[in-house]
Amino acid sequence: MTCGTIHGVGLGPGDPELMSVRADRLLRGARHVAYFRKAGRPGRARGIVDGMLRPDAIEFAMEYPVTTEFALDDPAYNQALSGFYAEVTTHLVALAQTGEDVVVLCEGDPFFYGSFMHLHARLQGRVPVHVVPAITGMSAAWTVTGIPVTWGDDVLTVLLGTMSELDLARRMSDADAIVVMKVGRNLPKVRRALELAGKLDRAWLVECASMEAERAIPLAEAGERTVPYFSIVIVHGQGRRP
Amino acid sequence: MTCGTIHGVGLGPGDPELMSVRADRLLRGARHVAYFRKAGRPGRARGIVDGMLRPDAIEFAMEYPVTTEFALDDPAYNQALSGFYAEVTTHLVALAQTGEDVVVLCEGDPFFYGSFMHLHARLQGRVPVHVVPAITGMSAAWTVTGIPVTWGDDVLTVLLGTMSELDLARRMSDADAIVVMKVGRNLPKVRRALELAGKLDRAWLVECASMEAERAIPLAEAGERTVPYFSIVIVHGQGRRP
Repeated sequence: MTCGTIHGVGLGPGDPELMSVRADRLLRGARHVAYFRKAGRPGRARGIVDGMLRPDAIEFAMEYPVTTEFALDDPAYNQALSGFYAEVTTHLVALAQTGEDVVVLCEGDPFFYGSFMHLHARLQGRVPVHVVPAITGMSAAWTVTGIPVTWGDDVLTVLLGTMSELDLARRMSDADAIVVMKVGRNLPKVRRALELAGKLDRAWLVECASMEAERAIPLAEAGERTVPYFSIVIVHGQGRRP
Repeated sequence: MTCGTIHGVGLGPGDPELMSVRADRLLRGARHVAYFRKAGRPGRARGIVDGMLRPDAIEFAMEYPVTTEFALDDPAYNQALSGFYAEVTTHLVALAQTGEDVVVLCEGDPFFYGSFMHLHARLQGRVPVHVVPAITGMSAAWTVTGIPVTWGDDVLTVLLGTMSELDLARRMSDADAIVVMKVGRNLPKVRRALELAGKLDRAWLVECASMEAERAIPLAEAGERTVPYFSIVIVHGQGRRP
């Protein structure tokens, strides 16, 4: 019997029409579909493909044992996650070894800050793995602002809202175009860092890019808001333009 | 009569199956299709959609008046380009004003170092413009290497092969994950910069990602090669991974 393939399929930023033709084809044909979700939640990735799966698709919800509220530097956090990834990998390998292909749904692009990467590292060399790249959340975000993000020789720096204020400010000072991912409750810190770097007046806040609730506003006008975890801050480059 | 819309449609990295479902739908239905190309060449963007256009599609090839061999800092270069962009914009606006929609084919993602940005800036406020984001060439490139590009809090820095060696080296020293776009004949300089930054041994060279001629090799093993303009160099991040 031939071993099945684990497909890590990028779904893109959220709008099903922004999936690649390949992603669309693979997931509509999939008999086995796996996805991450928080316990007790329907799951964002699963939500994107609502109504697209085969009626006889067998779903495997991979439920995180911990939430993002856990301290990232607590060794128990890493241990719990590591055990969880090992466990779901065992399940996926067993499925593939019965000859079944599995489509793993991945928000955004699988190899760009994606959860699938932790399975990929564990699946490598055990079963065939195939990755389908996708439109990143940041591409959807700068498209929503209606302004191109990089011109000419602009350097693009991609930062995480989880970084320290000083690290953020230092990187922002030295950047042409900036993307800050995973803003969420880090928004006040990100705003202070942009102010330190002298770039707050050029920054945009984008929520839910490509989805129904999508919204892009200048960050300076955003006020004290609570924004979704996957919100993105953009500072557009100002390079050469004939 | 209603004015038509100019759609800037990202085609992604080159494989037609990596277009978005929306891009696929728009271009298969398009009566008017425009694309940039060098004079006397069939055009890369046009090549990607070969066999996908309506038989009665009307094509508008926008032929660059200058080549990349022109010195970028020569004012005549900017002038020639600027006149060219104004001219094709006039044609597109006139088309839209007859009520026709136009699909402008864009390699990669339209707002990420794309040529369409120069039309977008000139079309704004004159006719409706709609932009479809796409999978970037860099996403396809890191996917081909088979290694995720960013982990945990890794900072991603996107550089251009056209930058000076010292600028490149300085940025590379301070980066976690690195993408260098538009490598082409800048490869020897990019290699020297990576060596200065102490990261040559972790760098990959990717040519023609997602296309038939796709190839990813460690840069240190690449030797003295001539590589296509759109080749990409990747250094993967090494951040936290449970």
